[in-house]
Amino acid sequence: MYGMSLVWIVSSSPFLPCWRMTEYLFHDVPRLPRGFRCAAVHCGIKPTGKDLALFASEVPGVVAGVFTRSLFPGAPVVVGRELLRAGRLQAIVVNSKVSNVGTGEEGLRHARRMGAAAARALGISPELVLMSSTGVIGVPLPIERIEAAAEGLVAALQHDPLTGADGIMTTDTHPKALSLSIKNAVLTVVAKGSGMIEPNMATMLCYVLTDAELHAPALDGSLRRVVDDTLNMLSVDSDTSTSDSCVAIANGRAGPVALDAFEEALHAALTRTTELLARDGEGATRLLRVTVQGAASRSEARRIAKSLVNSPLIKTMVYGGDPNVGRILMAVGKCFECSVDPGRLVAHIGPMTVFRDGNRTEFDEGGARALLGGDPVDLSVDLGVGQGEARAWGCDLTPGYIAENAAYFSS
Amino acid sequence: MYGMSLVWIVSSSPFLPCWRMTEYLFHDVPRLPRGFRCAAVHCGIKPTGKDLALFASEVPGVVAGVFTRSLFPGAPVVVGRELLRAGRLQAIVVNSKVSNVGTGEEGLRHARRMGAAAARALGISPELVLMSSTGVIGVPLPIERIEAAAEGLVAALQHDPLTGADGIMTTDTHPKALSLSIKNAVLTVVAKGSGMIEPNMATMLCYVLTDAELHAPALDGSLRRVVDDTLNMLSVDSDTSTSDSCVAIANGRAGPVALDAFEEALHAALTRTTELLARDGEGATRLLRVTVQGAASRSEARRIAKSLVNSPLIKTMVYGGDPNVGRILMAVGKCFECSVDPGRLVAHIGPMTVFRDGNRTEFDEGGARALLGGDPVDLSVDLGVGQGEARAWGCDLTPGYIAENAAYFSS
Repeated sequence: MYGMSLVWIVSSSPFLPCWRMTEYLFHDVPRLPRGFRCAAVHCGIKPTGKDLALFASEVPGVVAGVFTRSLFPGAPVVVGRELLRAGRLQAIVVNSKVSNVGTGEEGLRHARRMGAAAARALGISPELVLMSSTGVIGVPLPIERIEAAAEGLVAALQHDPLTGADGIMTTDTHPKALSLSIKNAVLTVVAKGSGMIEPNMATMLCYVLTDAELHAPALDGSLRRVVDDTLNMLSVDSDTSTSDSCVAIANGRAGPVALDAFEEALHAALTRTTELLARDGEGATRLLRVTVQGAASRSEARRIAKSLVNSPLIKTMVYGGDPNVGRILMAVGKCFECSVDPGRLVAHIGPMTVFRDGNRTEFDEGGARALLGGDPVDLSVDLGVGQGEARAWGCDLTPGYIAENAAYFSS
Repeated sequence: MYGMSLVWIVSSSPFLPCWRMTEYLFHDVPRLPRGFRCAAVHCGIKPTGKDLALFASEVPGVVAGVFTRSLFPGAPVVVGRELLRAGRLQAIVVNSKVSNVGTGEEGLRHARRMGAAAARALGISPELVLMSSTGVIGVPLPIERIEAAAEGLVAALQHDPLTGADGIMTTDTHPKALSLSIKNAVLTVVAKGSGMIEPNMATMLCYVLTDAELHAPALDGSLRRVVDDTLNMLSVDSDTSTSDSCVAIANGRAGPVALDAFEEALHAALTRTTELLARDGEGATRLLRVTVQGAASRSEARRIAKSLVNSPLIKTMVYGGDPNVGRILMAVGKCFECSVDPGRLVAHIGPMTVFRDGNRTEFDEGGARALLGGDPVDLSVDLGVGQGEARAWGCDLTPGYIAENAAYFSS
């Protein structure tokens, strides 16, 4: 019932050349790479539902990770940065509902106890177990419940990645996992997102598991390059989480894979993951993709794409399906530090040109309304001043976002 | 029925020393300074209601103005910048509903024709008349209707500033005008705001009229300093308008006024105007004030205050009255370039300390809920790392904002 039917194919729009990915055939039913298993149980942090998950490899793997740039990083992020220095990892234990952020020294101790509990149950060294927590900030982690559940968690290990994805959800409406093959190897991504999403290094929680054999520096380089173009260009609400983590483990069970092929597959997988996360943003009804071309530089293109994807007036326009195209100009115009020439800018809704030569075009309003009412919604801007290009992903702003966030702490 | 009953007094919170203003006695009923009159009529741009306004002095006055930093400035902003170079102005003509932005060369001609029509009706030189337009972007200005209405507009000139304020409203729920005395002189502010409000130089439309006698450079300096601490620290939705303009005219009819006294009065008047605009943000139910102290610098304090006031998660928390104080840490934490030490940060809701020493305090949740349910809502953060301080103003994010903006163009 879940799984890939929720994931749509990225169309190759004629004016969007730089991110047209190789059309990988994602697996119809996502699966884990050789040697990986996962589990999820209810340990009592949420009133009901799974709230504790484990992802584990039979053998230690090479690891790379990127974490939030927040100046208020959660305890698992602080401890995780230390753990990843060793370059090897065998398991990740994750709880949802409480994020273990803003919890001081006690929070750091709880994070270490959480990793140690999973390591003990797995019979491996605690240095090989990363921990993540997601949920409310500023509340102590119920560590005893996690410790009590660790053995049962290990006993529940099985082969469906959606089971693990289910255990890490907060306000996500469905578990997110996908996989694809790179010759003999498999690459699997499990992620959760929803709100407080403008990742900066990575998004809320995202795990990349592969049985490809890779060197640690190569894995690290690929992960950073790909995340920069995918998860780091995602914004649900412009609010950067304190817990963002994207960690990749390669256990080598499928033997060596060419780095180019691996990175191409990773790009495809994380692009699709980014779209899944954007489309399931809190309250969202549509995926919004913003493409900027012809900017003075790549960084200006990124800045402008983010400005559009984060503008509440653009996001409500998409929600309402209302072709108020002046808002595109507004959102470009507020990037004060960028090179913009109003006379050269060309703006599109889908394939329809709506602004050119300093004026709104005589476009078909009914057609524009239909495009804005579709899913995904593609907005694009060609600045006509240089070669910089970028794409950003987001979603519409709806009453559902407000309803979810007006009482999140108490609910 | 309108007027000062809608304006509340700024409380002097014990931990907010730097913006505690002299307690000026604002006039119970706002009035215009000597020699100024205003008018508003229906000229047919809106289906019903006043849509054309005029503010005029008997004699030319000294002028200062600040405009949007948008890279897509409206035609009236482009023409206005030229006009203000001469340093003297006698009248301002303003239409609502159509902003004359994204309208190319034709838009510039329309803006000039609009000023010329008002000048002709007033019997003065067109160089002495500034024009402003506010409303939808990318639609041609119905200039013939404005020209046809100019004589009637001049015939309707009268002494109540709220009449002029009524003519410049778009989605504002009430006209905004206030006045106060500086010894023998009067200072009057007329403004409109509501949405697409994160001014950068000034807010949507704001006119400062005074009969004080001032030199142009002094007026200009005062206006820039005060706007930087008031209107430039306002954000309803983080979207900077293409039309923001704040223009001050001093006609000298009350004789000289000490610059210190004038600037102090201007600070009080624009602080209150900023609060009026924030409180009447689109869909808003409460004014949100964010105060940052102890930052490494004033600019870091401003950056962090803006981050909090713009965070959708903070704004929905205020709307819901839900003390999810971790979001304060999140919004500080995402100011990556600032100096923040999680162990030193102290956060307050109103007078209540909610975070200290790296942990959420054991605060009274019912009390916090009551403070968040009040109006205004004061959030404050002491970073404990320096002397920088700033205040920003905003409002909650509500379903009303989305409803207004999902169909603004079509409605």
